[in-house]
Amino acid sequence: MKKQIRIGLIGYGFMGRTHSNAYSQLDHFFDTQHVPVRQAVCGRNEEAVKEFAEKWGYASYETDWRELVKRDDIDAIDICTPNNSHAEIALECIKHGKMVLCEKPLALNGEEGEAMVKAIEESGLPNLVWYNYRFLPAVTHAKNIVAAGELGRIFHYRANFLQDWTISEDLPQGGAALWRLDAAAAGSGVTGDLLAHCIDTARWINGNIVSVSAMTETFIKERVHQETGEKQAVTIDDACSFLARFENGSLAIFESTRYARGHKALKTFEINGEHKSLSWDLHDLNRLSYFDHGVPSDRRGWSSIHCSDGDQPYAGNWWVPGLCLGYEHSFTHGLYEFMKSLDDPSAEKQYPDFRHALGTQYVCDAVLESARTGQWVEVKQS
Amino acid sequence: MKKQIRIGLIGYGFMGRTHSNAYSQLDHFFDTQHVPVRQAVCGRNEEAVKEFAEKWGYASYETDWRELVKRDDIDAIDICTPNNSHAEIALECIKHGKMVLCEKPLALNGEEGEAMVKAIEESGLPNLVWYNYRFLPAVTHAKNIVAAGELGRIFHYRANFLQDWTISEDLPQGGAALWRLDAAAAGSGVTGDLLAHCIDTARWINGNIVSVSAMTETFIKERVHQETGEKQAVTIDDACSFLARFENGSLAIFESTRYARGHKALKTFEINGEHKSLSWDLHDLNRLSYFDHGVPSDRRGWSSIHCSDGDQPYAGNWWVPGLCLGYEHSFTHGLYEFMKSLDDPSAEKQYPDFRHALGTQYVCDAVLESARTGQWVEVKQS
Amino acid sequence: MKKQIRIGLIGYGFMGRTHSNAYSQLDHFFDTQHVPVRQAVCGRNEEAVKEFAEKWGYASYETDWRELVKRDDIDAIDICTPNNSHAEIALECIKHGKMVLCEKPLALNGEEGEAMVKAIEESGLPNLVWYNYRFLPAVTHAKNIVAAGELGRIFHYRANFLQDWTISEDLPQGGAALWRLDAAAAGSGVTGDLLAHCIDTARWINGNIVSVSAMTETFIKERVHQETGEKQAVTIDDACSFLARFENGSLAIFESTRYARGHKALKTFEINGEHKSLSWDLHDLNRLSYFDHGVPSDRRGWSSIHCSDGDQPYAGNWWVPGLCLGYEHSFTHGLYEFMKSLDDPSAEKQYPDFRHALGTQYVCDAVLESARTGQWVEVKQS
Amino acid sequence: MKKQIRIGLIGYGFMGRTHSNAYSQLDHFFDTQHVPVRQAVCGRNEEAVKEFAEKWGYASYETDWRELVKRDDIDAIDICTPNNSHAEIALECIKHGKMVLCEKPLALNGEEGEAMVKAIEESGLPNLVWYNYRFLPAVTHAKNIVAAGELGRIFHYRANFLQDWTISEDLPQGGAALWRLDAAAAGSGVTGDLLAHCIDTARWINGNIVSVSAMTETFIKERVHQETGEKQAVTIDDACSFLARFENGSLAIFESTRYARGHKALKTFEINGEHKSLSWDLHDLNRLSYFDHGVPSDRRGWSSIHCSDGDQPYAGNWWVPGLCLGYEHSFTHGLYEFMKSLDDPSAEKQYPDFRHALGTQYVCDAVLESARTGQWVEVKQS
Repeated sequence: MKKQIRIGLIGYGFMGRTHSNAYSQLDHFFDTQHVPVRQAVCGRNEEAVKEFAEKWGYASYETDWRELVKRDDIDAIDICTPNNSHAEIALECIKHGKMVLCEKPLALNGEEGEAMVKAIEESGLPNLVWYNYRFLPAVTHAKNIVAAGELGRIFHYRANFLQDWTISEDLPQGGAALWRLDAAAAGSGVTGDLLAHCIDTARWINGNIVSVSAMTETFIKERVHQETGEKQAVTIDDACSFLARFENGSLAIFESTRYARGHKALKTFEINGEHKSLSWDLHDLNRLSYFDHGVPSDRRGWSSIHCSDGDQPYAGNWWVPGLCLGYEHSFTHGLYEFMKSLDDPSAEKQYPDFRHALGTQYVCDAVLESARTGQWVEVKQS
Repeated sequence: MKKQIRIGLIGYGFMGRTHSNAYSQLDHFFDTQHVPVRQAVCGRNEEAVKEFAEKWGYASYETDWRELVKRDDIDAIDICTPNNSHAEIALECIKHGKMVLCEKPLALNGEEGEAMVKAIEESGLPNLVWYNYRFLPAVTHAKNIVAAGELGRIFHYRANFLQDWTISEDLPQGGAALWRLDAAAAGSGVTGDLLAHCIDTARWINGNIVSVSAMTETFIKERVHQETGEKQAVTIDDACSFLARFENGSLAIFESTRYARGHKALKTFEINGEHKSLSWDLHDLNRLSYFDHGVPSDRRGWSSIHCSDGDQPYAGNWWVPGLCLGYEHSFTHGLYEFMKSLDDPSAEKQYPDFRHALGTQYVCDAVLESARTGQWVEVKQS
Repeated sequence: MKKQIRIGLIGYGFMGRTHSNAYSQLDHFFDTQHVPVRQAVCGRNEEAVKEFAEKWGYASYETDWRELVKRDDIDAIDICTPNNSHAEIALECIKHGKMVLCEKPLALNGEEGEAMVKAIEESGLPNLVWYNYRFLPAVTHAKNIVAAGELGRIFHYRANFLQDWTISEDLPQGGAALWRLDAAAAGSGVTGDLLAHCIDTARWINGNIVSVSAMTETFIKERVHQETGEKQAVTIDDACSFLARFENGSLAIFESTRYARGHKALKTFEINGEHKSLSWDLHDLNRLSYFDHGVPSDRRGWSSIHCSDGDQPYAGNWWVPGLCLGYEHSFTHGLYEFMKSLDDPSAEKQYPDFRHALGTQYVCDAVLESARTGQWVEVKQS
Repeated sequence: MKKQIRIGLIGYGFMGRTHSNAYSQLDHFFDTQHVPVRQAVCGRNEEAVKEFAEKWGYASYETDWRELVKRDDIDAIDICTPNNSHAEIALECIKHGKMVLCEKPLALNGEEGEAMVKAIEESGLPNLVWYNYRFLPAVTHAKNIVAAGELGRIFHYRANFLQDWTISEDLPQGGAALWRLDAAAAGSGVTGDLLAHCIDTARWINGNIVSVSAMTETFIKERVHQETGEKQAVTIDDACSFLARFENGSLAIFESTRYARGHKALKTFEINGEHKSLSWDLHDLNRLSYFDHGVPSDRRGWSSIHCSDGDQPYAGNWWVPGLCLGYEHSFTHGLYEFMKSLDDPSAEKQYPDFRHALGTQYVCDAVLESARTGQWVEVKQS
């Protein structure tokens, strides 16, 4: 008999949809003993939240998250609100004994994150942060290859997350749709929104980052704020690049921007080891580029592995070789890992929890500090 | 108030899963007045069909398709059985006044198909054949560009569907999993399985094919039959290539095989017109390659359009620019077109119905005849 | 002490330049005992031929090829004239005991070619036909891999040569620059000009072609002739596609056209064997795509081998790994093979001679006959 | 009547070959009034230098560069020796009134470079530094597009030069073949060897760099020195990455290494502007990737411009559209620009002279200082 995990979702924007899709799709494709149930969704606009509940099959809705968190018929809370509310909501969830699945980044900064980690670890409650890109088959495959030690000594890591949607000066900032451009709600710009993803992937695959030297820029200095209708200073970082050194001695460069004309969501990584190299990008997410120096010299080349075969991570649960998966599958796979760990709590967790996400938060903090001070900054470890 | 279309699904194999996914996903992402309801699924193995019903949320199940077809609480039958049963089931559905959504190809041959078209058109019942690849955003985008006349005179069309999964001599034929290798169940080999998809796409985009010259080959002559356990002659075509002329004067080559080492499901097309050219492949399905001769000569090149922006077909209903869709989305989009045409029966249908699929069947028949006779064959038009 | 081979070049158009470049470059990069000397160039326009001789360092010039052919200080004649003069000039060269390096195709048809082969073989004179594309490192590498039997049983071969330079109706035909559009001078259109290259490569790599079914088309029916200034019927084939069967049992499709908008000189081939597949295209000529099924299943993918390492054919004579070669290098490599075989006449020849080129001519003849008759045609073997 | 520029080449290693090829090829493909003459080559090993002279058609040779520099029959000296001799030789050339074509980098450091610039500018002698990559058609095309202002405001620049040839610990350092691994001869490791190329291209296309933050690493700490046969500390930088800010406000990241497994000579750049973006890499050097935001939104994509058409820079002097050029053509094009400026000294120079190369040297100096100090460093401007 399956054990139901009754989900209460807070926030029903873009991320609310991606998570709801995972709750809907999981048991069509994966077999776990614990299964999610769409119990309630919460949002301040009653009409809109009700419509969302109907569309996605949530059994009920709430307009006050504090009410949701208190409900006895909820086992786990999924936090999909702007970053500045993650800590407050999560702490309240923990107080009421709810598991927490929190949208990334964990918090506005390391200090907030530390409080969250402390509370959740003392409670013993299962917890996840939705760094979803790990769970694309090609990315997980890369992780597994590196974890097996196949690359030998690692020399280099590089990662980008390039977008171009904020180039126009006429784009406003703030409000429901554009809170990511408002530092008060988002904490930072591309650093927390985009680089946090790159850093999570990097730390998962290549270990801890020990020091960074960063620069940031705000290209458009003023934008109309959606809520006030007035021109206000833009306080987020539009672009951020940094140099880094990993604990394993490898060197890295990271770059993120919303001003790279022509790139919609170009998240990439490449890792160069003594024996092998790997690279990947989100625009062609089913493929892993793979270079194996062990191949005879006249046959060496970068191989494009289409990670859709049954022996690739997660792929065998879907279709047949050659048929592509898409973006949203990453959330279903992450949810699968979470449910699987409820099935067997003793197994090693294959998903990012609060503590791992705190490590990523510390890197973001160090990056922003380095950009402010112009100095190399040592990264605190979680 | 939404109007429910109660679906009875016959067959729950690979295609049963892709269609069920579409029924599950449609109203999470698309807004139609008519919406599918998973009413019943039918299969001969009771335990298995019951399990499928639970997993995919079908309200009931049947083990005899004739019983399902008679039920009053079913509005539409979805046929996902091997090709040799399509005609019989469809005719029975029509007799009972059910709409029919039939997996491709329509039938074993043109003669069977003609009877199906006659019956369904006399009944006036809505009908669809699941040529799903049309509905990938990049393919629909290509269709729209050609339909707008932007290419000018068309000179060339070429299409492949290359696989490599039957190269081993040890692979058996026949039975539940491998009926596609058994001519009795499948009607033909790659011609009906793979080329039919290429032909549907081609006819949709580039119009009628008028004549063909084909060759086929069966590379492995004998295989163990799964049901008898004995070595039997292989009667399907392992590979089929053909030259073709279109009604619009353009020349074409088509090729399909299950012996192209290295290709899993490489469905491609390219069309070359006076002013523009387009090409696409299924392994990188979010992109359309686009060449516009109207661009100044020193800036001309093949562009890679990542069809994930909101103004691309279907894409705006899913995520944000740059985020990939996958294979299964094609079925959801096809279902959307079907439901939309129930909402407004007077609008032009954007999906392949029995009559269009009959035209594709005629091309397949001509191809197989040409391969047999070594002659150019004129294609019957539907 | 080096042995000089004094070259007399007839024709100084595009091909005259590519060959002259090879004569100039050979001993800068390759070490052979026999070395070419630019002794004389021949053309009807004295001023132009004189200028060419100066520019390219030819010691002398002629305006009548019959005079050149008689000269005692010439060891080898290089024929770079339109196709309809190859036979006559070559036969005269043989009469005067000159080696012959003849631009492709060998002749207007098999009959002419047979006379040329007979004469040259009776004379025992060294002879070459300039099918240059063989000698690009990636193509030679492919040949060597197939010749070693690594692909196992061959199932498929496919090749294209796509251009788009004759789409405009305003382009005239005939005359010095456009004799390739005049069937009287060229013999055929794309068949002899482009497909002949594809056929040479195919036969070299995959063996003899035994039967073909072809279609041709002339899209623009009339063009102004440059010499008469009048509109005349176009008698060449603008496009030609054909199905083929090879002696080794593999199936093939070939396509060539000057109406594929967006492709400048897209010569391609792909070969699919039981164990491996290979593909290549001229627009990215330094790379060979390579698929090895022997790689563990979760690491399989198409590899892009950048054929610029020292252990790739010819590449070690040029620069260092990663640095590209270009189109013209193919001629230098072909010339190297010719000179090397003069150094050691007993070694197996690595270049196409008249007899091999006659085999290609026979395929072209069969293709054109099939297009005319609509029948499959058996190919005569050389 | 053509004016001969009699060249004296010092050094006949890899760079001596690339330059000699340019001297040999120039007037076969380009028409200038001033033309190079291979007058003399100089090297310490008489046998080897004599052989080189014969192979490449130099009229004479020398074994002492001081003798060469004094000769009256030499107009220009081409310096192809290790970096630590550039300044001394160049200053001596200037003293004897010779034009100087110097291999890059200009000098070991800015101080040396300043003396060279001062001397050559006071002399009024024409001078060039062989930053050859500028002259590949796709790179020049990119420069022209940016120079025309088409990109609008520039936001980002990024460039790599990745190799993998020094990963093995068994590779020795120093000596004739490996002086690039010896800081005494080379001045630095990848910074002067590889990043200098990236910086030259960047400054040419995107203007001055004003500040940098860098890190370097020496992965293999000790290697056998070829000359002593003993293990010695490695003093060069194996890898170097840096953040930069340009005068125009754009942000940049640069990375270079000889430890990026799988990359032979992957020199790349990408520039992102308000309206357009461009990118390129050396492994596929004929293509320029081009994104134009002015294209209607549903047709936007990265275009691959094959820069082989007659209206692309330099390409029309070679073959026909679609046919690739290679690495060595860059030197011929650079030489063409130099000779053209001798033809018309009043025209704007299209090649890097000593002063421009000094600017690149200053960036390298700042990068190395930043890596040493861990601080951002302001770049001196030339």
